[in-house]
Amino acid sequence: MDEFSFIDSIKQKTYSQSSLIKGIGDDAAVFRSSMDIVTAVDTFVENVHFSKETMNSFHVGYRALAANISDLAAMGAVPAFYLVSIVIPKGWEQNELVQIFDGMKQLAEQYKMDLIGGDTVSGKELSISITVLGYTMKDKSRFRSDSIQGDVVFVTGTLGDSQAGFHVLTNPDNYIEPAYFVNKHRMPSPRVDFSSKLNNISRLALNDISDGIASEANEIAEASSVTITLVDELLPTSTNFNQFPADLQYKWKLYGGEDFELMGTVSKEEWNEVKRIAELTNTMVSKIGYVSAADPVGRVFLKQNHNKDIILEKKGYVHLK
Amino acid sequence: MDEFSFIDSIKQKTYSQSSLIKGIGDDAAVFRSSMDIVTAVDTFVENVHFSKETMNSFHVGYRALAANISDLAAMGAVPAFYLVSIVIPKGWEQNELVQIFDGMKQLAEQYKMDLIGGDTVSGKELSISITVLGYTMKDKSRFRSDSIQGDVVFVTGTLGDSQAGFHVLTNPDNYIEPAYFVNKHRMPSPRVDFSSKLNNISRLALNDISDGIASEANEIAEASSVTITLVDELLPTSTNFNQFPADLQYKWKLYGGEDFELMGTVSKEEWNEVKRIAELTNTMVSKIGYVSAADPVGRVFLKQNHNKDIILEKKGYVHLK
Repeated sequence: MDEFSFIDSIKQKTYSQSSLIKGIGDDAAVFRSSMDIVTAVDTFVENVHFSKETMNSFHVGYRALAANISDLAAMGAVPAFYLVSIVIPKGWEQNELVQIFDGMKQLAEQYKMDLIGGDTVSGKELSISITVLGYTMKDKSRFRSDSIQGDVVFVTGTLGDSQAGFHVLTNPDNYIEPAYFVNKHRMPSPRVDFSSKLNNISRLALNDISDGIASEANEIAEASSVTITLVDELLPTSTNFNQFPADLQYKWKLYGGEDFELMGTVSKEEWNEVKRIAELTNTMVSKIGYVSAADPVGRVFLKQNHNKDIILEKKGYVHLK
Repeated sequence: MDEFSFIDSIKQKTYSQSSLIKGIGDDAAVFRSSMDIVTAVDTFVENVHFSKETMNSFHVGYRALAANISDLAAMGAVPAFYLVSIVIPKGWEQNELVQIFDGMKQLAEQYKMDLIGGDTVSGKELSISITVLGYTMKDKSRFRSDSIQGDVVFVTGTLGDSQAGFHVLTNPDNYIEPAYFVNKHRMPSPRVDFSSKLNNISRLALNDISDGIASEANEIAEASSVTITLVDELLPTSTNFNQFPADLQYKWKLYGGEDFELMGTVSKEEWNEVKRIAELTNTMVSKIGYVSAADPVGRVFLKQNHNKDIILEKKGYVHLK
C-alpha cells in the first residue's frame, strides 16, 4: 500500500456541499460561503483515547468524528467539511484503516459532510487528527462567555452513559441492556439537529460535554464570570443507569465525559423556546440548575438533597498531567 | 504541566486577522469572509519527518508551518489562520514545546497569521498536525489541472538545497557555505508573496515542491492530462550546489523535495507577467521546460544534453510503502 492508492480508496466520488469548489486532489481544498465559518481540530491516539479492546476500527472512526462534530454543535454550527490526518504504525492493515474511514463516513453522510483533505503518514502509534468546518448564520455562533445571572442551566440527553458503556465493555457481567450503554460509548450522537435550530434564541451559552459536566460548567462559569449551581437530583440519567454502584454513577454523571451532550444557559424568558426546539428535534432536554451571581472567578456548586452544597471542581480528564 | 496551562502559555494575546470573530477559548474558532477559503492539513512525526539530531525545537515548528503555508502558496492563497494539534510523549519538556510554537509563531507573524485552535494530547511519539486556512480572490485558486499544451513550465528559487542541507547536517565535512544549505533545510521560505500577487494571470497551474520536482511535475501532468518536458540544464541550482557529488546533485534536484519552491505552467503570452511579478517580489524564477501534448496518462520527460530523453517517474518520498 502506498499513500496515493490509500487516498484513492477513501476519496469521495461525489461531494454534497454546494459551497465546495475543490475537494481532495490538489495542494488544498477550496470553498466559498457567506455564512460564518466555525472550525476546530481534535486528535485521538490509540491506547490514550481508544483501544482495540473496546472498539473496532469502524467505531474508532465514528467516535472520533462524532467528538469533532460535537464541537461544532456546541457552537450552534451545521457541519460541512472534515479533513483527516492519520499517523499509521506497522501492524494496521489497509482494511482496518478503510474501516476507520467508513466509520467517519457513516456519520458524515448523516450531515452531508464532505471529506476534503488530509494527510497519511507513518509512525509508531495510530493517531487521528480531524479538522471540522461548519457554518452558522451571521453572529449566531454560541459562546461559553454568554451566560448571565438569572439564566436557566440545561442539558440534553442523559449523563454518564458513555462511561457506563466503557465499564460494561471492560468489566464483563450480567447487565441490563448492555447494548444501550455500549452503543452510547462507541457511537455517540452529536446534538447538531437541536443546536443548529436554536437561531431564534437571542442569547445562549453552550458547551459540549466531552470532559464531564463538572468541567464544562466550570468553563462556562469562568468564561462568563458567573456562579453556576447544578442540582444533583435534576441531573438526568438513563433508565437503567441505577444498576451500577452508586459511587460510579456519581463519578460518571459528573466527571465521566464523552457523552457529547450539550449543556447551556439561557434566560428564563427563552427557556420555553429551547424546550420547543428540543421537542421539534426529538431531543430530551432537562433544566438542571441556575446561574445565580456575578463571580469574577467563576465557580460551580452542586446542590445535594441531604448534604451541604459542594464546590464542583474541573475534574474532567486533563491530558499531560 | 497540564493541558490548560500549556494552552495558556501559547495562546496569542491579540489577533491580527480582522476576519476573525472568535479565537482560542471556546469549542471552536469562528471567522467570516467574502473571499474564497483555502484549507489543508499536514502531519509531521518525529524520526519520520524530523529529528532532534538535525533540528532544534524551534526549527521543528518553523518548518512544519512552512510546509503547510507552502500548500496555501501553491493555491495562490494568502495565509490567515492555523490550528495545531500536538501529540506529546514523555521526555519532551514544556520549554521545548513552547519553542516548537515559537518557531511557528515567528513564521506566522511574517504573514499576520493567527493561531486559532488546536489540541494537545499525550502519546508515544511527538507528532504535529497543522491545519492552515487562507484566502484567495474569487475563482483565483490555482489548480494542478489547469495546464495546457504550449505552456511554459517554470520554477521559483533553486532545487535540491534542502536535501543538501540535510546532508551537511548528517555528514560533517568541510563544506562551502554550509549555513546557507542548513538554513534552507531548517527554515524554508514558502513563496506566498510571489504566488498571491499572480491574480492578473488568467490561467495558471501551480504546485509546491514538497516531494521533488519529478513528483510535482507528474501531478500536474496527470491532473491536466498533458506531457511535461523538463530540460535538465535549465533546472536551477544554487551557486555552491556543485560542491556535492554529481549523483547526489542529480538525485536532490529531481527527487529531493522539501524545497517548498513553486513550480507551475502558464501560457507563453502570460509568462512575461509571471516574470514581472517575480521581479516585483524579489523572487528568482526560471523557465525549465514546456508542456508539449495532450496525454491522457500525463507523463513527464527529462531532456538531457548528452543523453536521450528519459521518463521522469514520481519518485518522491511516498509514505506507507
